[in-house]
Amino acid sequence: MKIAILGMGAVGRGLLEMADQKDLGLVVTGIADSKSALMDKDGIHIDEVLEAKRVHGFCGDKSLSAVDIVNHADYDVLVEVTPTNATTGEPALTFIRSALERGKHVVTSNKGPIARKYSLLQSLAEKHGVSIRFEATVCGAIPVMHTLTQGLAGNRVLAVFGVLNGTSNYILTRMEAEGLTYEQALLEAREMGYAEADPTYDVKGIDAAIKLVILSNTIWGLDTVLEDVEITGIDCLTTDALRLADDQNCTIRLIAQSIPSRGVLRVSPRILPKAHPLVVEGTLNAVTIETDMAGEITMIGKGAGSVETASAIIGDLMFIRDHYAGCH
Amino acid sequence: MKIAILGMGAVGRGLLEMADQKDLGLVVTGIADSKSALMDKDGIHIDEVLEAKRVHGFCGDKSLSAVDIVNHADYDVLVEVTPTNATTGEPALTFIRSALERGKHVVTSNKGPIARKYSLLQSLAEKHGVSIRFEATVCGAIPVMHTLTQGLAGNRVLAVFGVLNGTSNYILTRMEAEGLTYEQALLEAREMGYAEADPTYDVKGIDAAIKLVILSNTIWGLDTVLEDVEITGIDCLTTDALRLADDQNCTIRLIAQSIPSRGVLRVSPRILPKAHPLVVEGTLNAVTIETDMAGEITMIGKGAGSVETASAIIGDLMFIRDHYAGCH
Repeated sequence: MKIAILGMGAVGRGLLEMADQKDLGLVVTGIADSKSALMDKDGIHIDEVLEAKRVHGFCGDKSLSAVDIVNHADYDVLVEVTPTNATTGEPALTFIRSALERGKHVVTSNKGPIARKYSLLQSLAEKHGVSIRFEATVCGAIPVMHTLTQGLAGNRVLAVFGVLNGTSNYILTRMEAEGLTYEQALLEAREMGYAEADPTYDVKGIDAAIKLVILSNTIWGLDTVLEDVEITGIDCLTTDALRLADDQNCTIRLIAQSIPSRGVLRVSPRILPKAHPLVVEGTLNAVTIETDMAGEITMIGKGAGSVETASAIIGDLMFIRDHYAGCH
Repeated sequence: MKIAILGMGAVGRGLLEMADQKDLGLVVTGIADSKSALMDKDGIHIDEVLEAKRVHGFCGDKSLSAVDIVNHADYDVLVEVTPTNATTGEPALTFIRSALERGKHVVTSNKGPIARKYSLLQSLAEKHGVSIRFEATVCGAIPVMHTLTQGLAGNRVLAVFGVLNGTSNYILTRMEAEGLTYEQALLEAREMGYAEADPTYDVKGIDAAIKLVILSNTIWGLDTVLEDVEITGIDCLTTDALRLADDQNCTIRLIAQSIPSRGVLRVSPRILPKAHPLVVEGTLNAVTIETDMAGEITMIGKGAGSVETASAIIGDLMFIRDHYAGCH
């Protein structure tokens, strides 16, 4: 199966390394970073590209760009792993639309386009008889989309709850375990590389809300956007609040929840018993799917990381290979 | 899709109810219980069969049996949900073999045949171009098989760990929470309907070991049997042991683990930190899959129950429908 990759950040490089090391039947015929691109219908030498990126900071020909790859490379699946723009979804949104209009499958880790234009992209994919998959946008390595759409097939999903942001969870875990203030824990998260210089998206619950929008739209075919989510972050939480929870053998976690039958679409700090399955430690993610037959299914795993995200992307690629490469 | 169902215990009846209530595209063309059977290539009236079973204790024609359904009914998938015989796998094993030899798909919740003859059944299915699926044999409603084979596709599985027996977990939870002795907690489990009159299979770790064999054989294509598993049950555990664990903020759970690279295939009580994802409460099941790319993925959910088991069976049926009913 021929794939073209847009984006050579940590995720793009992680994916290339896995495609090189594992015998997955993937041939990379196009690659683009922000400065350059290259294509070869017979397959690009992955080790050479990774070396070029490491040495020169760009991967290919500076007269080519991502647009050229999308429109002219010979591929079956476009793997779109450029940085997220949560406001417009661009330029990823245009790349994805162009690929779908060429009748190419798309796999993306990019939350922007999916949170902004899910139903449009989905109908575009259907019109052209291809698939758009985005397991990597929510809960990193946890195959939650796959479980919702395949593993729990036949179930009606009633609600979804989750710890969808690892940075916030790390901060809460450290405040709880060491009695740190929010500011101290945030500083530590930054030092560990878990929080960015501007942690707004994470600590104010926006990242979790974007993922909740993606989950809700996928599960229930809704067309909600970020502005529909009622959001409270963790940045006003005090050590006292955590201590009070602890007195009752409880703790506080930033929980995203969507219950359409009750009109609930919310991200907020919640007090939970310590034994609750969603009370996970450190940067872990967790999601509970409430269904009519299977009851509550909880999945826990790493929410970020280049190889972990590559795992989700590869799961999507294998799905497309198995479903479209001919009947079984 | 036409299905024939063998077995009208709680699982068979739960499945029939779901097939009746939900629009899943399932037509039931054959049913057998231990005393009778019936078949109709145009579809059996499910409500009438359930009513007959409730009133008379059997579902159909006493001159027909499961063998007739397997060999003569008109179906695409045989759903085999008769009681488990862990020693021989019979009579389910013969039913399943016959169906596969007729070129019919098989979905089963029966641990016996899969734990005894997985590789034989798998090669028989391959030979006849059909599928044998058994999500319901391990961890009830949790779609663990699906996650292993599809959701985490492309990953190498390094190890699997799990709380695979709800009865033992209930007993340990109660010993921990209330300081009950093993005998007291077992009595309570019996009163709640969580333990059978003879609890040997559950408390001595045999049920968990059978599920571990199924998991290991599926993941790694091994051909292990129950006798290969090193088993220690929970029936010798004292309240003191749990109290000692509690002093270190730990607890004890019956953990099944398979790590082929280290030759580990074991069921035994293990001391775990209370915050560990496998420390689940009551009759819940939990399983951790350790992989090369996704890291550790833990899934938690109900390990038993008629509708929960029906959920797993329906997930398998939907998989077969999507994979064999023609290309997308």
